[in-house]
Amino acid sequence: MGKLPNIGKYPFRAEPFRCDFTKHLFIGNLGNDLLNTADFHSNDRGYGVIFLQSIHKTWVLSRLAIELEKVPYIYEKFNIETWVDSVMRFFTSRNFKISNDEGTIFGYGKSIWAMIDTDSRQPIDILEINNGVISQYLEKDYFNPIEKLSRVKISENLQLVKTLEPKFCDIDINGHVNSIKYIEHIFDLFPLKIFQTKRVKRLEIAYITESHIGEVLHFYTDKAIETEQNETAIRITKDSEVGEIEVCRSKVVFCGI
Amino acid sequence: MGKLPNIGKYPFRAEPFRCDFTKHLFIGNLGNDLLNTADFHSNDRGYGVIFLQSIHKTWVLSRLAIELEKVPYIYEKFNIETWVDSVMRFFTSRNFKISNDEGTIFGYGKSIWAMIDTDSRQPIDILEINNGVISQYLEKDYFNPIEKLSRVKISENLQLVKTLEPKFCDIDINGHVNSIKYIEHIFDLFPLKIFQTKRVKRLEIAYITESHIGEVLHFYTDKAIETEQNETAIRITKDSEVGEIEVCRSKVVFCGI
Repeated sequence: MGKLPNIGKYPFRAEPFRCDFTKHLFIGNLGNDLLNTADFHSNDRGYGVIFLQSIHKTWVLSRLAIELEKVPYIYEKFNIETWVDSVMRFFTSRNFKISNDEGTIFGYGKSIWAMIDTDSRQPIDILEINNGVISQYLEKDYFNPIEKLSRVKISENLQLVKTLEPKFCDIDINGHVNSIKYIEHIFDLFPLKIFQTKRVKRLEIAYITESHIGEVLHFYTDKAIETEQNETAIRITKDSEVGEIEVCRSKVVFCGI
Repeated sequence: MGKLPNIGKYPFRAEPFRCDFTKHLFIGNLGNDLLNTADFHSNDRGYGVIFLQSIHKTWVLSRLAIELEKVPYIYEKFNIETWVDSVMRFFTSRNFKISNDEGTIFGYGKSIWAMIDTDSRQPIDILEINNGVISQYLEKDYFNPIEKLSRVKISENLQLVKTLEPKFCDIDINGHVNSIKYIEHIFDLFPLKIFQTKRVKRLEIAYITESHIGEVLHFYTDKAIETEQNETAIRITKDSEVGEIEVCRSKVVFCGI
């Protein structure tokens, strides 16, 4: 059996129940599709969570950016290609391209992942896993034009706009708030009318600290959420014994439809 | 080309991002899968929303029941079979069977659908659509053992437990609160610890009135939600000019894991 290609390609569709009131795929659902391809691609190549479970390790999403020229429309089919272009001891960089068989490019994504020990929650040297198998599948030449992931710089002058306690449907298989649910809660901060005249051009999110069942989350935004500016910064914090600590920070950039 | 079979069969999988903290598929996600098969099955047979859109009609889910012996576990593959066993002027009855290639039966579903005119919002005679094509695909003999759909009788002595205004991620392609989002909000009413020792045996929901962008929803439950009883009734209402009106009523039955 030959070695699998460096790039994995997976088919998806914008089923009606995954679309918003503008009949375009919810960005949260697209995010889930991206994470699913990361899962398929890494499992098929021997460094996914199916193997990692057996040695008490797991992947943790650290940063994600999605940049879109076009959002898949109801019933539209699309493919997601994913590949890893670099790996360091504690971080790996995974790319996504969203396009269709007719050559339309919907957009691209970039992400940074860490690996942790599920018992100690400490970071793990990725290159030591399964004899460094991940290095055999690096793809450095496939085009991804979007801006690289930043630390998501945001102003300190943010206002508290929402507080919520995560519920059953927010919690993932690890007992943490699901990475994509943060994104959905972020979109739910915006007045609905924004989505009638604008679409998401870029979404960026950095996951700083995990939050768990029973912890209370606070959402802060800058003024852009209520004005005509197209760029909004969001910080999510949680209560802890040492005061509020940062859970994630995100930036949403809208553009005209 | 021969006529399609009366029963449609579609493959699914419990991808990790669709699973809850017990590593079983979220019931809401299973519900989405069921509704997707209804969509595929009816479109392929000439009476789905793709055709209906062209004549300004659409299907509306009126009632849904899901009864489960077992919930798909993370990475588990399963198939959903769906078929219509009866059609009347204003309602049709659609069935679901959830099983896998090895013969494991996860459970069954039953649903009732109406058809409406999307301009007038009035009910439509289903038998007049596309020369009554739906009648050509009735399947009356395939086994579905679960209790038939009731009107979901619930006590009048319910307590208000939550009020919320639906947000962007709650709204479907028609501008209404998504049928499955009601189910997710219902599960989010329960204390998380219930899901550590119990699983959903039966979920039943009747959709009475649609709710729209900007309307406020109220969730009422009986005392079972806080006690050791396994059966909980939920009523969702919305504010209207004539006072609170009923949006849906639901019953969730848990059993030991």
